Amino acid sequence: MAFFPDIPKVQYEGPGSKNPFAFKHYNPDELIEGKTMRDHMRFAAAYWHVMRNGLSDPFGGPTAVTPWDDNSDTVDMALKRADVFFEFLDKMDIDYYCFHDRDISPELNDLAKSTAALEKVTAHLKGLQQTHNKKLLWGTACLFSHPRYAQGAGTSPSADVFAYGAAQVKAAMDATLALGGEGYTFWGGREGYSTLLNTDMKRELDHLAALLHLAVDYAKKIGFKGQFYIEPKPREPSTHQYDSDSVPA
Amino acid sequence: MAFFPDIPKVQYEGPGSKNPFAFKHYNPDELIEGKTMRDHMRFAAAYWHVMRNGLSDPFGGPTAVTPWDDNSDTVDMALKRADVFFEFLDKMDIDYYCFHDRDISPELNDLAKSTAALEKVTAHLKGLQQTHNKKLLWGTACLFSHPRYAQGAGTSPSADVFAYGAAQVKAAMDATLALGGEGYTFWGGREGYSTLLNTDMKRELDHLAALLHLAVDYAKKIGFKGQFYIEPKPREPSTHQYDSDSVPA
Amino acid sequence: MAFFPDIPKVQYEGPGSKNPFAFKHYNPDELIEGKTMRDHMRFAAAYWHVMRNGLSDPFGGPTAVTPWDDNSDTVDMALKRADVFFEFLDKMDIDYYCFHDRDISPELNDLAKSTAALEKVTAHLKGLQQTHNKKLLWGTACLFSHPRYAQGAGTSPSADVFAYGAAQVKAAMDATLALGGEGYTFWGGREGYSTLLNTDMKRELDHLAALLHLAVDYAKKIGFKGQFYIEPKPREPSTHQYDSDSVPA
Amino acid sequence: MAFFPDIPKVQYEGPGSKNPFAFKHYNPDELIEGKTMRDHMRFAAAYWHVMRNGLSDPFGGPTAVTPWDDNSDTVDMALKRADVFFEFLDKMDIDYYCFHDRDISPELNDLAKSTAALEKVTAHLKGLQQTHNKKLLWGTACLFSHPRYAQGAGTSPSADVFAYGAAQVKAAMDATLALGGEGYTFWGGREGYSTLLNTDMKRELDHLAALLHLAVDYAKKIGFKGQFYIEPKPREPSTHQYDSDSVPA
Repeated sequence: MAFFPDIPKVQYEGPGSKNPFAFKHYNPDELIEGKTMRDHMRFAAAYWHVMRNGLSDPFGGPTAVTPWDDNSDTVDMALKRADVFFEFLDKMDIDYYCFHDRDISPELNDLAKSTAALEKVTAHLKGLQQTHNKKLLWGTACLFSHPRYAQGAGTSPSADVFAYGAAQVKAAMDATLALGGEGYTFWGGREGYSTLLNTDMKRELDHLAALLHLAVDYAKKIGFKGQFYIEPKPREPSTHQYDSDSVPA
Repeated sequence: MAFFPDIPKVQYEGPGSKNPFAFKHYNPDELIEGKTMRDHMRFAAAYWHVMRNGLSDPFGGPTAVTPWDDNSDTVDMALKRADVFFEFLDKMDIDYYCFHDRDISPELNDLAKSTAALEKVTAHLKGLQQTHNKKLLWGTACLFSHPRYAQGAGTSPSADVFAYGAAQVKAAMDATLALGGEGYTFWGGREGYSTLLNTDMKRELDHLAALLHLAVDYAKKIGFKGQFYIEPKPREPSTHQYDSDSVPA
Repeated sequence: MAFFPDIPKVQYEGPGSKNPFAFKHYNPDELIEGKTMRDHMRFAAAYWHVMRNGLSDPFGGPTAVTPWDDNSDTVDMALKRADVFFEFLDKMDIDYYCFHDRDISPELNDLAKSTAALEKVTAHLKGLQQTHNKKLLWGTACLFSHPRYAQGAGTSPSADVFAYGAAQVKAAMDATLALGGEGYTFWGGREGYSTLLNTDMKRELDHLAALLHLAVDYAKKIGFKGQFYIEPKPREPSTHQYDSDSVPA
Repeated sequence: MAFFPDIPKVQYEGPGSKNPFAFKHYNPDELIEGKTMRDHMRFAAAYWHVMRNGLSDPFGGPTAVTPWDDNSDTVDMALKRADVFFEFLDKMDIDYYCFHDRDISPELNDLAKSTAALEKVTAHLKGLQQTHNKKLLWGTACLFSHPRYAQGAGTSPSADVFAYGAAQVKAAMDATLALGGEGYTFWGGREGYSTLLNTDMKRELDHLAALLHLAVDYAKKIGFKGQFYIEPKPREPSTHQYDSDSVPA
């Protein structure tokens, strides 16, 4: 409880409360149709939104105030951020979280080093989950922020990039399994094209399918029983995405 | 001609040309209804789009390759960038350009220093315009990128921020006048609100109007005869903008 | 096979086929990962899109050519339309269909008469399902086209309109059960508001919830075991809808 | 003053007024920067929005209550509607109006008869303008509602449809001139395409340009001195329109 010492644990106080650090409608233990609101909702905090979003936009720089964070992309900073995050989960009374590999752990521009870093952070998160009694809803690999993925990961025209992405998925699934994650998510924001003049849609779809098959096969191999999700988000950011209409699979 | 030595001047070669460095439809000196295409179109290159856009998006970092640029925000780099830009104008056969103050010149987090820097860059641009026979279409002040403008400039709840923005407009108008600009543009991307719960629309509109009046009064004082423009761009980035429906005034 | 005598049954001919009345990629009986494409896809034809959409838009009148249809809203025309529809299902090799009550059967501006008409059409559809070996995917009540629903059904400020809508839902669920429908759908396109100045959101949500509870209770009473769906469609047509973010429940 | 006997003339009463039939901010004769609000605003009522929009949407039928209107598309009804409209202009204190040919006058599915009808209605409107001291801001031809224009007017692949549209423009310009209209508007909502697979964009643009040239030539011939406008409205209703980016010309 070191990072937000002046913030009390947020609790239900009812619609009449004037306390900005109180739930006014969400009463976690209230029974609704025979089930608690906590179980109906199963709130999860996304590591990206809470810890890594500086609040920049295409027209201006970041404005978030995060005094604990020196914005370095190192293992040490990643471990400290995780501590802050779990204090946040405690104070918000949120039971679940979810993450992208490169949000919880640094991108070191070297696959082996990045994977080793992810393993270190995963071990730390495992301890935090036990201490704080929190659970992982799902994990995912960030296959869209680094410039190598500018033309996609599964649909990249470069075999190297495809392999790099697949290796990231493998490591992210290992981390998700180690943390008891209940699911694993794919988001193909870069798996698209901007013009029909420079696309072989059939080939790109075949490649994307190959990546998904590899992932499912690997899940079976390591004994991951969680649900797979595909998150469709049209035009964010690629104009035409291959999975913009997909539903959970 | 130091920065793009291998790129020839782009010229009209007609629709049949296979040369990627050729105009296929735009023939600058062809008469259409008694007027050249050059005069119909009056193409202008925007300094932001050409020189300062790293091609990042909300999901990934910059991917533009700009070997001449060390990405520092200094006067020296600004002068060098201007040289690159004018070579670009020459090779593209574009007669006009337009700019934001903080794209051509550094933001030094000190109004006096930033303004002095802008004056240096302006003098350099004036020389380049003469040497290269180019003209300024319009100038504008960037009142949206720096965190101080997160809640607007003319509509900011802070008098300091309003004054800072007004001072930037004054300096940008001085630069525009010095460079013979044919117009001056306002873009109020941050002059909006995200929720009615925290807005006094009448007051904010009055403040925005005050800023515009100050600008018009100053233009008269310094003898700037150009056209004023308001550029409406709904939801980019503020959800509700005060000038999203405006027309040129 | 009276209505489209010159149209053959559409069959799979492969990607090389030039026949406009052929499937080029959909091969119903091809096994993909141990399951036929027919079972992966479970295509269903929506009665609205196939039979009742005249192809008008806000700027122009209907342009669809439907020589079998005199556009009257009568039981006789409804029965004939159903015959045309099942011929369409046969020729397209589509196994499922889905409907709104007022698309398959007339709106007679009298609840008892409209319900009696729906029962007649339902009996006819039941026969057609058997003869043509087709199944009903889901049914739904149209609570948005008639002017009485201009301000919503479940969220209407009029108790009469609420009751009218609920009675339509009851009759549509009876029809869905009689036809062996595998689900029942709610679409709340009118269950919204256009301005916060004239809305009591809590009350409207409570009313909408009451309608959904009544429907679930009635399903239990009549022994309908199908899945319930809520179809969210933001801003179509109401600006702010209460279920625009809903997921299948 | 026969149609709205209980509605008084709407007048400025100031922001404190509780009268729903009063202007609270618009004070027509108040001077703002040396010009009356009436002259700043130059409000015009569009015949379509006021008189002919039944308030249907793609999901439901019309709900507007217009007891004076039998919804017939006849000259008699057109003349009566014009009387209602001018009473509306009086009571709203609006000085200008604008129209589509087929809103003020019937579409009789016969060019000569439709044009003769337009001339009759035009004569009536001329009288109403004088009696009520109102002016025409602009006129336009409706080249988008009738099914003949489903594939465009100027860009239609049918020479007959092009000629029909051009003849409508001619008659609408005659009416606009006769009524002293200050401008003439083109809106190309149907002048687009839905797929590149079935488009010859160059040819369609050439045809559209031909229509515009014919109109300008005809304006010169008859002595119409008004401003021409092109109204761009992206995706309303055609997905890709040729003039969606156009500016007033």
